[in-house]
Amino acid sequence: MNNGQRYEPLTVPRRVILGPGPSSANPRVLRAMSLPIIGYLDPAFFELLDELSGMLGEVFKTNQRAFAVAGAGSAGMEAGLVSLAQPGDTVIICSYGYFCERQIIMSERLGFNVVPLRTEWGRSMDPHVLADALKEHPETQLVVGIHAETSAGTLHPIAEFARLAHEAGAMFMTDVVTSLAGCELEFDEWDLDFAYSGSQKCLAAPPGISPVALSERGLDYIRNRPKPPTSWYLDLQLIADYWGPDHIAHHTAPVSMIYGLREAVGMALNEGLSARWERHAANASALRAGLRALNLELPVPEDERLDQLTLVRLPKGVDDVKLRNQLLDEYSIEVGRGLGEFAGKIIRVGLMGESCVPANVFALLNALEKILPEHGFEVANGVAAAAASAQLVKQPSPLFTG
Amino acid sequence: MNNGQRYEPLTVPRRVILGPGPSSANPRVLRAMSLPIIGYLDPAFFELLDELSGMLGEVFKTNQRAFAVAGAGSAGMEAGLVSLAQPGDTVIICSYGYFCERQIIMSERLGFNVVPLRTEWGRSMDPHVLADALKEHPETQLVVGIHAETSAGTLHPIAEFARLAHEAGAMFMTDVVTSLAGCELEFDEWDLDFAYSGSQKCLAAPPGISPVALSERGLDYIRNRPKPPTSWYLDLQLIADYWGPDHIAHHTAPVSMIYGLREAVGMALNEGLSARWERHAANASALRAGLRALNLELPVPEDERLDQLTLVRLPKGVDDVKLRNQLLDEYSIEVGRGLGEFAGKIIRVGLMGESCVPANVFALLNALEKILPEHGFEVANGVAAAAASAQLVKQPSPLFTG
Repeated sequence: MNNGQRYEPLTVPRRVILGPGPSSANPRVLRAMSLPIIGYLDPAFFELLDELSGMLGEVFKTNQRAFAVAGAGSAGMEAGLVSLAQPGDTVIICSYGYFCERQIIMSERLGFNVVPLRTEWGRSMDPHVLADALKEHPETQLVVGIHAETSAGTLHPIAEFARLAHEAGAMFMTDVVTSLAGCELEFDEWDLDFAYSGSQKCLAAPPGISPVALSERGLDYIRNRPKPPTSWYLDLQLIADYWGPDHIAHHTAPVSMIYGLREAVGMALNEGLSARWERHAANASALRAGLRALNLELPVPEDERLDQLTLVRLPKGVDDVKLRNQLLDEYSIEVGRGLGEFAGKIIRVGLMGESCVPANVFALLNALEKILPEHGFEVANGVAAAAASAQLVKQPSPLFTG
Repeated sequence: MNNGQRYEPLTVPRRVILGPGPSSANPRVLRAMSLPIIGYLDPAFFELLDELSGMLGEVFKTNQRAFAVAGAGSAGMEAGLVSLAQPGDTVIICSYGYFCERQIIMSERLGFNVVPLRTEWGRSMDPHVLADALKEHPETQLVVGIHAETSAGTLHPIAEFARLAHEAGAMFMTDVVTSLAGCELEFDEWDLDFAYSGSQKCLAAPPGISPVALSERGLDYIRNRPKPPTSWYLDLQLIADYWGPDHIAHHTAPVSMIYGLREAVGMALNEGLSARWERHAANASALRAGLRALNLELPVPEDERLDQLTLVRLPKGVDDVKLRNQLLDEYSIEVGRGLGEFAGKIIRVGLMGESCVPANVFALLNALEKILPEHGFEVANGVAAAAASAQLVKQPSPLFTG
């Protein structure tokens, strides 16, 4: 029976998503998303929040506060900025990529005295740059530095950034959108004050919720600041109090997203964080071997780059948009474009969470091997997969049981 | 095989959710939530956004902008406030309930010159109060008035509010969280500038995304204001531009929530908006007949109350928390508590979206009939369902096909 309905059930194309995020979600996570709705003030839902809060603490490696902001990773970003500094405060922002620039834009809108420390995109920032800036700005309230820059494919020494910030009496906030559950992160040991992430990268949940960790120092600051944050929705104290033992009502919680996040975090903990980091490292290593075999250039130096996200320089004459469109149209493979300084010069290949499997490495390499000659870039035939395979031999079998 | 996993798949209790929201979601909507993830910059996803934008336009009854803010209804609230006024601007807020007070709190945080017009909770506000205030404050930039106040169960003459605001040269923004798809709403005909809603009430999608409509006048204002909104995440121009024809990247979109919202809106349009409003009216009428048969008092006058949400005064001696806990523990039925001035004095019964079915009316009435005598409130036995049935006879069968 159609009953004359105008809107038939939604269909979506089958994609291999190897962009900078979202990554694929495990069927078990997707099944959890379809569980019936319960109330956000239901005692059973509070139990779920309590469990998930503890699980997130394990992922962030913190015994302090771990919860989730009801929005994209950028909501986590803005929640940190609006909560941890006040208009007129000096905020130092380490900037080596597009998302650092977003932090600067947000901070300027919030009326902070923004001190941007701009260093080369595609390289790790030298902590001395921060040390010097802190000497020049002893009044600094907050230092912001991204752990894994998603636009530049770089990893940064945030433990050292945090140490320098605290030495100067400032707090330290970081972005772990791409790093959480994909490489080492130690919230407590590194003495971070606030870290925000996304659900849709190495955690492999759908996008739309931002797992965060907050230090007691950071929470005390918010509780005691003379004026509350200009944002009510993104006030970390109000969010922490809803997730805290008293479960004080704030806004309606995104029930299904929390189901999905719980399931994804559970699967990450079942796999084991170290095993998960190793899986990301092993597949990235295979991908890089294959890309090099194709004579493609990886612009980020070896000890400064991410495993979750690989930047590939576009060979001369290869058009960014055409290449990505062809990958999508002919192979249903999504890769990411270059942003900011890298626009038109690189593509970004994400191997995160559920997308981080050998089959996807092979699929992309084979597709590139086929496509690149059509763009005038000659590659030796059949070499990419072989090079990748050589790296994949020692990878432990990932655990994806339901 | 268990493979030694610590985290087994999530389970949630089966509830009859008759609170102020979230309401239940249709299985077809829940199935859509579990579709595989695709990228938020994928052309196929842009097609989905275009389709959904048009569908939301039908629900809001607007040919202007209709899209969704990636957060709870409160995110839609804050997006409107932060986008449509600037620090120091005079903002008149009609206040007759808890969510109006939330608008005041947000506006004070944003540094507006807030003029609260407080009138009696549980009654519709007389537009003369607004007319007088506008005479006193000719500098007013924005007037805010809620259509359906979720804490007070009241409906308000927002078309008249909007007319008065425009006459005085101000914009008008409203909250249709509980009204959208549950009773008449005419965005263009009533000349509204901004309306935000929630996904989790009469639209019957999971909570976590806020459908909104924005006038071209409102969008022009944001494009031309001298300083951008203090919030980047909730800047309605940036969100509108992502949903608009150029699909300019903003933050990562909540892919699964958008799947679910599309499916829920499709089902609402398949049912027909008028039929849906009538269904809400018919079931509410049955519920009220049953509650009256139990000698319970409905504090909101007949022509000022909502069908989506019914306030019930707690009889003398009946404890709010005990009653609600008993309903949840013994019958797995959730109803809402009183907020603000109504705390401890009332319960709120929502019959919205998928929760708005005769079976739920009977379930709640029978449960109350059984429980209330245990709280010392004597009711005639067997009368409630009969009274409700008498009202339900003429209700058309709701269309819930997959």
